[in-house]
Amino acid sequence: MNLEEYLNRVGKSARTASYNISTANTGQKNSALLAAAEEIENNIPLILDENQKDLVFAEEKQLATALIDRLALNKSRVLSIIESLRHVALLDDPVGSIEQLNARPSGIQVGKMRVPIGVIGIIYESRPNVTIEAASLCLKSGNAAILRGGSEAFHSNQVLSKCFQRGLELADLDTSCVQIINTTDRGAVNAMINLPEYIDVIIPRGGKGLIEAISTGSRIPVIKHLDGVCHVFIDKDADFQQAIDITINAKTQRYGTCNTIETLLVSEAIYEQVLPSIFQRLAEKSVHIKACEKAISLASTITDLKTSPATEDDWSTEYLAPVLSVKVVPDLSSAIQHINQYGSGHTDAIITKDHQKAMKFLRAVDSSSVMINASTRFADGFEYGLGAEIGISTNKLHTRGPVGLEGLTTQKYVVLGDGHIRE
Amino acid sequence: MNLEEYLNRVGKSARTASYNISTANTGQKNSALLAAAEEIENNIPLILDENQKDLVFAEEKQLATALIDRLALNKSRVLSIIESLRHVALLDDPVGSIEQLNARPSGIQVGKMRVPIGVIGIIYESRPNVTIEAASLCLKSGNAAILRGGSEAFHSNQVLSKCFQRGLELADLDTSCVQIINTTDRGAVNAMINLPEYIDVIIPRGGKGLIEAISTGSRIPVIKHLDGVCHVFIDKDADFQQAIDITINAKTQRYGTCNTIETLLVSEAIYEQVLPSIFQRLAEKSVHIKACEKAISLASTITDLKTSPATEDDWSTEYLAPVLSVKVVPDLSSAIQHINQYGSGHTDAIITKDHQKAMKFLRAVDSSSVMINASTRFADGFEYGLGAEIGISTNKLHTRGPVGLEGLTTQKYVVLGDGHIRE
Repeated sequence: MNLEEYLNRVGKSARTASYNISTANTGQKNSALLAAAEEIENNIPLILDENQKDLVFAEEKQLATALIDRLALNKSRVLSIIESLRHVALLDDPVGSIEQLNARPSGIQVGKMRVPIGVIGIIYESRPNVTIEAASLCLKSGNAAILRGGSEAFHSNQVLSKCFQRGLELADLDTSCVQIINTTDRGAVNAMINLPEYIDVIIPRGGKGLIEAISTGSRIPVIKHLDGVCHVFIDKDADFQQAIDITINAKTQRYGTCNTIETLLVSEAIYEQVLPSIFQRLAEKSVHIKACEKAISLASTITDLKTSPATEDDWSTEYLAPVLSVKVVPDLSSAIQHINQYGSGHTDAIITKDHQKAMKFLRAVDSSSVMINASTRFADGFEYGLGAEIGISTNKLHTRGPVGLEGLTTQKYVVLGDGHIRE
Repeated sequence: MNLEEYLNRVGKSARTASYNISTANTGQKNSALLAAAEEIENNIPLILDENQKDLVFAEEKQLATALIDRLALNKSRVLSIIESLRHVALLDDPVGSIEQLNARPSGIQVGKMRVPIGVIGIIYESRPNVTIEAASLCLKSGNAAILRGGSEAFHSNQVLSKCFQRGLELADLDTSCVQIINTTDRGAVNAMINLPEYIDVIIPRGGKGLIEAISTGSRIPVIKHLDGVCHVFIDKDADFQQAIDITINAKTQRYGTCNTIETLLVSEAIYEQVLPSIFQRLAEKSVHIKACEKAISLASTITDLKTSPATEDDWSTEYLAPVLSVKVVPDLSSAIQHINQYGSGHTDAIITKDHQKAMKFLRAVDSSSVMINASTRFADGFEYGLGAEIGISTNKLHTRGPVGLEGLTTQKYVVLGDGHIRE
């Protein structure tokens, strides 16, 4: 059987399974999640052995240390996978709820029922816990999942998905609800993103290169974000202490996350008052400043602060590192314009005490999360109360911002009549 | 300026306009709609003259009568365009509402704000009223629109869009909010669907050929439906009179609409009781029956009923004509399976008095509208209370079923803090 035939077979059985799982009751789905957790708990030595095979191979291939770290499992990491399964079992099931059921003049009642999307393809890299995370969220939301993990985590992913399928089996659910691609052939990704007849949406998790390649090549809608070029704008009516604390938190709490800011915008009216304290604290954290002309003259007065002039490219660069671009802007409107032009539509915050300006920023900034007087680091499914997160979307259609169980569902109209015909 | 440069310029100014219109207040948008209505009212003779140019050209080119009929304007049709503008002005503005604003343990408040999508491209055929319908719905929902009408309606569309832009001008809104492509070059459609940097979503309105070509070629998400292969399933526990009345209404009220049924499914347990009356009434309406083996033997006993055996292809054919395929199925499950396999995910109804079976059908049928004891002909934005309709979507993502103002919007997360940072 060649790759295309194999993927077709996987897709076809996923489609059939999706009909079965779409109407499974919540208790049965939860049983499967809990049984999968137990299955993993009973097989920790086996899981660590399989992970060891991947680690040996990764070291042979001299993969980057960071990648090997993400790949490695130990008992505590496996326990947190088990905990996450039990957590998903506790979440409310979004499927089947009917909203806005209203009577119409014709006599029919019309509402919207929340239903699964169908078949979800997840393409991801290195971290084996994504296998269980993706499988559990797709199952709970009533979708079938086709998983394609990185070749470097092949053995770990296979053993974890087997445990999950055993959970499905024990709960009397179709094991084809969650299928993992059993080949490391790179062509499998390409085959997956060209199966619109069997897969309804693709969710890639990984580096920008992977996501870019998938978005460009996919014939299936992709839920994704590419960049996180996030901003804090300090308005002239900001509380300065809030402005300083939020900027430092949004930049330095973690450097490698997508909701970390890359650019600080400051109102011209107050930049001389607020920037020195910010620069002082960034110098202590060894953050490199790429500044506009006005800001750089201030920055150069701070001892031990690394600075360089910002180029046009800096305004749209996601550093994912201790680097911050800083720009002084005339007013709120120019801040909004800068963010909509150079940002990535991910997460942006204004610091202000002025209600009108706060509301204008909230409405006019075209991003998946827009914040008033809060750190961009809050842009996260858990912080938002979604209970779980399969990723963040900067798409404008369907689901935007952190994506939890609801983002994995859609709605259909339901019409209740009693023999009604259209006149 | 070549076509690509022209479309780029249109796209760029639409993007800028979309930021302006996204925060325009409701009163201002309504003023523009009412001013446009007045502008059209004051220019009826001019509009009919321009329409006459299109009609002369259409007759020279010997276009089909049905097409010429859709193209033709008269005073009453123009008055109904004016009425539709005033109606859209009366609808609630979906933009800016914030849902589910809840406090989180960290102290931040998180909610979802409804916001415009951005720039919407509408590609449509013949009927000039779509120009105003699309422009008004995009404007009311805060989006910029790029309109591409059929070349056969060129003069009519140009004069109508000029009236609309004059309305925008009188309300002090950016006239680039609504732009109409000013060339009949067929390459313009292709250029539009390849402008993802400037257009967020494409909505095609027209025949299946147009929609298929656009979906295949577009690099931008497309909101659409291709087919309307709709079903009525008569369960063994149906109220027979309801079953008969709904089937006749769903098939014969209008033949050419997408929510008309193409296939009737009947439970094996009662087909001999219910089909003769249905066949009798369909014979009176000269509906041709394509039937499965069981049904055809019954059908052949009815005088004046045209029948032929159904082929495999019939189950997935949208006749848009007085033709109905009929199949006897063993039970509810096989009806659901038939619909999910052969249907187009548009609108499907069950006729039953049994609550459990009704609810199973409601959950398991994977279509944009699923109905209990009601005619599929109700699947329509006006009947559902959306106030207006820009089309029907059988997409699973973003918006599904009749698409009104809400379908032209998206949501973003808003976070309200008071200096909150992440610990």
